[in-house]
Amino acid sequence: MRKKVEIASDMGESFGNYILGRPEEVMKLINTAFLACGFHAGDPVVMQQTVNLCKKYNLVVGAHPGYPDLMGFGRRWMGITLEEARAYVIYQVGALKNFAEQAGLKIRTAKAHGAFYTWCIEKEERAKAVLDGLLTIGRSLEAIHLPALPITPLHEGAKKAGLRVVPEIYPGLVYDERGGVVVRRTYEAAVKTQTDVIEKWIKTGKVDTEVGTEIELPAEAIEVHGDMSNAPEVITAIREVLKKKDVEIGSVLA
Amino acid sequence: MRKKVEIASDMGESFGNYILGRPEEVMKLINTAFLACGFHAGDPVVMQQTVNLCKKYNLVVGAHPGYPDLMGFGRRWMGITLEEARAYVIYQVGALKNFAEQAGLKIRTAKAHGAFYTWCIEKEERAKAVLDGLLTIGRSLEAIHLPALPITPLHEGAKKAGLRVVPEIYPGLVYDERGGVVVRRTYEAAVKTQTDVIEKWIKTGKVDTEVGTEIELPAEAIEVHGDMSNAPEVITAIREVLKKKDVEIGSVLA
Amino acid sequence: MRKKVEIASDMGESFGNYILGRPEEVMKLINTAFLACGFHAGDPVVMQQTVNLCKKYNLVVGAHPGYPDLMGFGRRWMGITLEEARAYVIYQVGALKNFAEQAGLKIRTAKAHGAFYTWCIEKEERAKAVLDGLLTIGRSLEAIHLPALPITPLHEGAKKAGLRVVPEIYPGLVYDERGGVVVRRTYEAAVKTQTDVIEKWIKTGKVDTEVGTEIELPAEAIEVHGDMSNAPEVITAIREVLKKKDVEIGSVLA
Amino acid sequence: MRKKVEIASDMGESFGNYILGRPEEVMKLINTAFLACGFHAGDPVVMQQTVNLCKKYNLVVGAHPGYPDLMGFGRRWMGITLEEARAYVIYQVGALKNFAEQAGLKIRTAKAHGAFYTWCIEKEERAKAVLDGLLTIGRSLEAIHLPALPITPLHEGAKKAGLRVVPEIYPGLVYDERGGVVVRRTYEAAVKTQTDVIEKWIKTGKVDTEVGTEIELPAEAIEVHGDMSNAPEVITAIREVLKKKDVEIGSVLA
Repeated sequence: MRKKVEIASDMGESFGNYILGRPEEVMKLINTAFLACGFHAGDPVVMQQTVNLCKKYNLVVGAHPGYPDLMGFGRRWMGITLEEARAYVIYQVGALKNFAEQAGLKIRTAKAHGAFYTWCIEKEERAKAVLDGLLTIGRSLEAIHLPALPITPLHEGAKKAGLRVVPEIYPGLVYDERGGVVVRRTYEAAVKTQTDVIEKWIKTGKVDTEVGTEIELPAEAIEVHGDMSNAPEVITAIREVLKKKDVEIGSVLA
Repeated sequence: MRKKVEIASDMGESFGNYILGRPEEVMKLINTAFLACGFHAGDPVVMQQTVNLCKKYNLVVGAHPGYPDLMGFGRRWMGITLEEARAYVIYQVGALKNFAEQAGLKIRTAKAHGAFYTWCIEKEERAKAVLDGLLTIGRSLEAIHLPALPITPLHEGAKKAGLRVVPEIYPGLVYDERGGVVVRRTYEAAVKTQTDVIEKWIKTGKVDTEVGTEIELPAEAIEVHGDMSNAPEVITAIREVLKKKDVEIGSVLA
Repeated sequence: MRKKVEIASDMGESFGNYILGRPEEVMKLINTAFLACGFHAGDPVVMQQTVNLCKKYNLVVGAHPGYPDLMGFGRRWMGITLEEARAYVIYQVGALKNFAEQAGLKIRTAKAHGAFYTWCIEKEERAKAVLDGLLTIGRSLEAIHLPALPITPLHEGAKKAGLRVVPEIYPGLVYDERGGVVVRRTYEAAVKTQTDVIEKWIKTGKVDTEVGTEIELPAEAIEVHGDMSNAPEVITAIREVLKKKDVEIGSVLA
Repeated sequence: MRKKVEIASDMGESFGNYILGRPEEVMKLINTAFLACGFHAGDPVVMQQTVNLCKKYNLVVGAHPGYPDLMGFGRRWMGITLEEARAYVIYQVGALKNFAEQAGLKIRTAKAHGAFYTWCIEKEERAKAVLDGLLTIGRSLEAIHLPALPITPLHEGAKKAGLRVVPEIYPGLVYDERGGVVVRRTYEAAVKTQTDVIEKWIKTGKVDTEVGTEIELPAEAIEVHGDMSNAPEVITAIREVLKKKDVEIGSVLA
């Protein structure tokens, strides 16, 4: 049984007058925050505020670049070129790095958001384009967070680039038969549904799939989407489960 | 009579399939390029390409952040807050810095674009918000380029912040009675009109204003807008004028 | 004492995954809905859904065009041209009209949103540009809703164009000494604050201003901003007040 | 041998300060213009100006809705939903209809732009979503323009909906072995290349494919992309070819 896990969330996804989820409540409860960078979500003011909250709550800062598609929240496939993928990442992480550095923080991990993630895991050249972009974060970048399964060219590429891969479990998402998360446009799942997933996984190391089978999921981080309206309750309940099972909660990078 | 001037242009203002002006032709002819950062113009791929051209033609790289208004090309006033102004600059220069650093280049100067410039010169607190943002560029930032006249809170603030102010003359724009440039939505002026301005200015140090007077303009840099369709011809002709008058052409930062 | 008032709200201001306020709850409680048209807020899917809700709850449909500024929610001043103003309105109301017509509904009233409203009331030529655009809605357009005070070129122009002007009171906003509403970036006010305003206004016809005076406000419609998080509670409480005072609630166009 | 063909172009693809191609020169030479509607290209002012030019040059007006992707010019695949597809079309054609009606013009034909076209031909339900949207144009809509080959669910659906299908030939694009046009991000082809295609097609009814075969192409309209920088020269040359062969040039809807 796992002795330590971290809790991570996508954060900084508000935009202008649009507040997504209940960000500060979530940030009090997690170890690692992946910050949107103004393409699929977020804007410069939101980024500044979210970096400030990362500092206040002592969170590990992750970069979370996405497709340039606010209307689709970066969750619909776009047929971009390799050159675009690389440039989009350099642009977004550069912007975030500047906010982080002003606050005395470093970007220590990263992941691609939504359908951009789905796009970049598929082929080696795509994984390389995105990794090339992420590596411009510089020496502070230690890791990349990725769904635990399936192992993709992105997992391989990240390791080859010297990054630690932190495998994630998503208690609020549906798993396909290979252990992959099914990307949808919105995610909502009841607190109990999600704590059940975590309880089972802590005990057995496994999750159920949508086809009725179960699969071993060697994760180190629990990812709860910050745009779920019940994210604070979900994370609070998951923390209870972990405490009861004597699992330590903390960043795996710490 | 001035012994040396530099020639500068706004660059990187294309967007997706939209090519603005004739960028590479211009870049062969200038000393300093101010790169749009994706808000009023430019996109990540354009920024990458423009940084590459700066390297190829050995140009001084300037940051050129603007309003988030592609439809208005950043040339119409927006009533943004101080917090927004600062965050918009941090975001944009951070993105550009990341592209520049990958190419081994540094951002050495900066200026606000169009109506964002007009907005930020007006009040001390606005000048401060923009300067705060520009200073996140870091130690590489030596200067800020500004219209020679009138002297504004932004000129004062930049000097106080330890930056060199490089005063500019705009041969293609109209000057008001105080020597200020009149911001319009598009700029076009004939080659001869622009060389006449420069010839007179080289000889007398003065420019004509729209009210029929002339005014002393202590500029060190000639700015030709890169979105003028005849920019390469204008700059070529201006270079001829300068040569004839034995004025050296080169970055004043060099 | 007024015998009948209507309750109106700005609606359809969600965007993609961003839900603003609690739209359907509000729509059950109001008479007239002003629908965002995709510039300052709203997107095509949201517009379709909001038109469907207007039909379901039998609401008067109003068009609510705004500045092309999602990041600022259309609440910051933009220095657009007259040609742009007119074209922006034609575009937005044309899009809305198409959704409405498919649902068998008509756009019967309209108003400009936020800072676009502030912009267009100031000068006769601006009022004309916006009205020209609104009149493309066609014969179904009977009225324009406007803050009761001050009387502006837009009020005058609307009347001259044959439109009925429906004067509004905003219980959640601050009034300046001339009875004008102070436009802010976000609005929030307690339920009690807002019912107090309405109670006083029903009894006396007056509202308090920010300078401590009170002013006669000859309104026919109560406008509660749909982006206030407590809008359903506010409107419910206001309805109670109106009922207690025997004021009929219903569209003044009906 | 064909006795009559029409010449059509995508128009209204400029955006703000970005002028794409040489629109007015092209509009003097064609019969039918497909107007961008502000999603993949175009803005309200451009739409107004382009409608005015359609009137001036007596062109058949077509609607040309696209993906909401200005950065990719609507030429990269996006995984939108059926609900989005339908709403995006209703929104865009509604906006265009309003401009057209003010000028006393009618939208008589339509087609989906770029990758949106590629998306919607693939499956019956997608073709239906887009057609549902296009049919909101109303009774003025007589036809839909489509690449001549291959015959897709969109061709079938359009006919079933009572629309005439006008098959097109694209002299500047590459044809795959089934006669389908290969969608790229930008198109450029020499004048001679394009007139050669038309000469052969006029004589034989066939075009060459990228795999070296030739294929019968039963087109009635010649489509030259308005964003090609040499579009006026290409169309002028094609008109010469047609004249020499005694082929009448005019809208097939007239």
